[in-house]
Amino acid sequence: MMKKIERALISVFDKKGVVEIAQILADEFGVEILSTGGTSKLLRSNGIDVIDIADYTKSPEIFDGRVKTLHPKVEGGILFRRNNKKDLQEAQKFSIKPIDMVICNLYNFKEAISKPNLSLEDALEMIDIGGPTMIRAAAKNFNDVVVISNPEHYPKIIREMREKKGISLQTRAFLAQEVFFQVAEYNSIIANYFQNYNYPDLSFGDKIIKIYEKVQDCRYGENWDQFAAYYRDIDIKEGLYNIKKISGKEISFNNYLDIDSCMQILLDFNNSYYNTAILKHTSPNGVAVDKKHQLKSIQMAFKTDPMSAFGGVWGLNKPVSEETADFIVNKEKIFIEVLMAPSFEPEALDILKKKEKMILLEFGDFLTKRDKLYRNPELRSVLGGVLIQEYDSKPVIKNWRVVSNRGVNEKEKEALIFAYKISKWTKSNSACFVQIYDNGFYTIGIGAGQQSRVHVVKLAVQKAIEFGHKDELKDSLMGTDSFFPFPDGLEAAVEAGAKAIINPGGSIRDDLVIKKANELNCALIFCDKRVFRH
Amino acid sequence: MMKKIERALISVFDKKGVVEIAQILADEFGVEILSTGGTSKLLRSNGIDVIDIADYTKSPEIFDGRVKTLHPKVEGGILFRRNNKKDLQEAQKFSIKPIDMVICNLYNFKEAISKPNLSLEDALEMIDIGGPTMIRAAAKNFNDVVVISNPEHYPKIIREMREKKGISLQTRAFLAQEVFFQVAEYNSIIANYFQNYNYPDLSFGDKIIKIYEKVQDCRYGENWDQFAAYYRDIDIKEGLYNIKKISGKEISFNNYLDIDSCMQILLDFNNSYYNTAILKHTSPNGVAVDKKHQLKSIQMAFKTDPMSAFGGVWGLNKPVSEETADFIVNKEKIFIEVLMAPSFEPEALDILKKKEKMILLEFGDFLTKRDKLYRNPELRSVLGGVLIQEYDSKPVIKNWRVVSNRGVNEKEKEALIFAYKISKWTKSNSACFVQIYDNGFYTIGIGAGQQSRVHVVKLAVQKAIEFGHKDELKDSLMGTDSFFPFPDGLEAAVEAGAKAIINPGGSIRDDLVIKKANELNCALIFCDKRVFRH
Repeated sequence: MMKKIERALISVFDKKGVVEIAQILADEFGVEILSTGGTSKLLRSNGIDVIDIADYTKSPEIFDGRVKTLHPKVEGGILFRRNNKKDLQEAQKFSIKPIDMVICNLYNFKEAISKPNLSLEDALEMIDIGGPTMIRAAAKNFNDVVVISNPEHYPKIIREMREKKGISLQTRAFLAQEVFFQVAEYNSIIANYFQNYNYPDLSFGDKIIKIYEKVQDCRYGENWDQFAAYYRDIDIKEGLYNIKKISGKEISFNNYLDIDSCMQILLDFNNSYYNTAILKHTSPNGVAVDKKHQLKSIQMAFKTDPMSAFGGVWGLNKPVSEETADFIVNKEKIFIEVLMAPSFEPEALDILKKKEKMILLEFGDFLTKRDKLYRNPELRSVLGGVLIQEYDSKPVIKNWRVVSNRGVNEKEKEALIFAYKISKWTKSNSACFVQIYDNGFYTIGIGAGQQSRVHVVKLAVQKAIEFGHKDELKDSLMGTDSFFPFPDGLEAAVEAGAKAIINPGGSIRDDLVIKKANELNCALIFCDKRVFRH
Repeated sequence: MMKKIERALISVFDKKGVVEIAQILADEFGVEILSTGGTSKLLRSNGIDVIDIADYTKSPEIFDGRVKTLHPKVEGGILFRRNNKKDLQEAQKFSIKPIDMVICNLYNFKEAISKPNLSLEDALEMIDIGGPTMIRAAAKNFNDVVVISNPEHYPKIIREMREKKGISLQTRAFLAQEVFFQVAEYNSIIANYFQNYNYPDLSFGDKIIKIYEKVQDCRYGENWDQFAAYYRDIDIKEGLYNIKKISGKEISFNNYLDIDSCMQILLDFNNSYYNTAILKHTSPNGVAVDKKHQLKSIQMAFKTDPMSAFGGVWGLNKPVSEETADFIVNKEKIFIEVLMAPSFEPEALDILKKKEKMILLEFGDFLTKRDKLYRNPELRSVLGGVLIQEYDSKPVIKNWRVVSNRGVNEKEKEALIFAYKISKWTKSNSACFVQIYDNGFYTIGIGAGQQSRVHVVKLAVQKAIEFGHKDELKDSLMGTDSFFPFPDGLEAAVEAGAKAIINPGGSIRDDLVIKKANELNCALIFCDKRVFRH
């Protein structure tokens, strides 16, 4: 059923496109236009015939515009049911004329409160009361009323009116839906503002409202039979959706998980060096930091575990050079699923694009936005709800405490912190052995996802040996994500060749662990910060 | 600054407690009461003096109550600023008297749409327009107006009025905050209703609104320095928050992760048997199904890897017996962090409660609610947004395809499905070896969290051997969560003793893998469903 428009109420905060649509409504379709305050002035100054709401209701705009449209003639004109006899009789009796279209958008509360030092008084003034009432009334009565609460729809609505001489029920229902989402969002922003005002020191409130907007449907989820999609948080300006895909197949659900982990690893390192992180199943399987060369950095990361590196997600923190692209595609012929970097040199791109399926992602200045990215907490579903926590973004070393007789030099200290960061990003329990070379550090054995400390140490050793790093285990350095409950884990590491170990400390048997370290002449550092990741 | 109340507007859908508070306001504090429709009748029939809004505004209630309070005298009376000279002059000029208190709650849209076969027309009638307008206006003007949108606050407000002869600014601001959360929630429910109406076949909409309510602050998050809390989704009726803690220390963030995984494992098994799942770091380290005895079930699960079982989360699907409690506390003296079951026999509880720190959780009929629990999707943060997917709740076997020459009997089939379910719940890549005994099945080696298939198989074998299951590997059965990219993983499993293996299939080298299975006389089943879990 097409809805013809005879009378429209136009009252907008965002004036974009309003003159154009009003003009068309008046001139082409002979619509009678009611309007308020600033909108009314604007339309009139553009030569459009407008009836002021105050004249229409015979009730003035009062309290600096706090009350303009909140009147039975307006709300009743929107709300009455055109197919209801009693409603029609009452409308006639009280001279309430039908309003068939409402064009209205709200005071921009969100933008207002983004200004620094906005007073509470000024913020309150930006809480729209009349606007939400009108558009909600129109949305409720979408059977009889067209509501346009988003200027982006103007062209579409005009097109439909021209083509169909009215607006379809389907379009009206769609517009109504949008109103309720908008108003929900609008009120949630105000609610959060009040919460911050009432409880400025509260980390997480009693209620949290999250609004997500779809970025991409995924072909499937973690597995082939799970429906899935990727959404952005409309309150957050920085995120993975800012990363640009340059070529390759569609980004999958599991790709997103790895891309997320990879970005976070890169965010944890000094961006003036050349850093490479290679991941699969959200855990790193090779990471290297080279202070001078990109190619060397990826070579060292790759050799940790070339088997797992195949088909993995690779992240670099500097523009990809031709030399690097040549190494991957031509020299080593490595199958990479995702390669991400701030940018690609044109020559590098020419080489990489030959691999049509490989997903190339350009993340620009993403790594400069660490603080912003970590401002919002992290969510994770548990049945019927979510666990919410701050991201684990604080420095991995809370206190640097050398608890053994043997100490470490500056370079070893750097290598230990490197090892500890990798351990942080590896699924718990984790252990990571690293080595030092001229220009940097690299992983030689990473153990992931074990349920006991000693096992994960042994697993890391085993992987180092399997991929040809037996000799490099000698005088290696190791980090592991929580304390040793017994000395056996430390013993296993030293036996394999470790000369220095970092972990948070905090076990009830720390004294036994320290004693064992001294017996074995191993440097042992406690840093007082655990780095679990499940 | 205390706010004194001279005039209150009362218009409620939920009538609970409204007579009492109106009576007190009128009798004790001499408040003039304005009211509408049903509320007005109720108050008057209880002997309370009430002025009808229609008489007050000289404007009748119209359109079956669609328009009652939407009038400048009402909204203006709420909205004008009592400290603003111009507002005061205008109020006087247009005979707008101040309304100092608004007691109002909304049509229960959520309850209405929960009724089966509700027509769209009836649903639309339950969208409240006047109510949200009034309470939002009052909340905006909280400086001058007290708004009570939740009947639970009546006693508190009366108490404050009696004690302080008015309502403090702090209370008013708190009440205003609540209004905006309520209205956000109210509109999000309507928005979701419209979305389902407009797009009945849509799995996930373009926008998703989630409202979470805090259940518990956690002492810390995944690590000691992360702030964290556990929230319920207000739209979901079944969840972990229904589980009752009987004794023990506070449930930690990491406990919740494990409890969630443990519940989901139990949900995956036939509840008429005795099932035990033991977890740490969200992966199982021992699971057993015994068709007759609880004690036997936990003994078999425990012996898989007694080291990791210590300090773990243990879940049982049947009431805990005295015999079981005695085994844990007295015989084996196992330190368990969380023990969860539908209930505990009194004798069992006496024994278990001796361990004061052990967290005992009673989950009642939780396991009967699988369908409801999985109705809503799962969320997981990635920077700036979330990945949303259906839970992996479909049967783990999509097609049972024996692709080898060797087949399996019914018992072996059952054991393979058991193995595959454990692999599903173990972090990817995973592999699980199981054995059959008289009354059931149990795990003998579980490999978790590896980045290559062959490694995780070897890891599972290694753990089986370490914990004394070398002999049981002979003629064992294995499940692994995705396909073999090469035959080497299958070879490693058969070499260790496996006689039958299940995986989804789907590798480009499936033919080589099948060939190898036949060479080694191993039964190989493809089930066409991958069970990754990251």
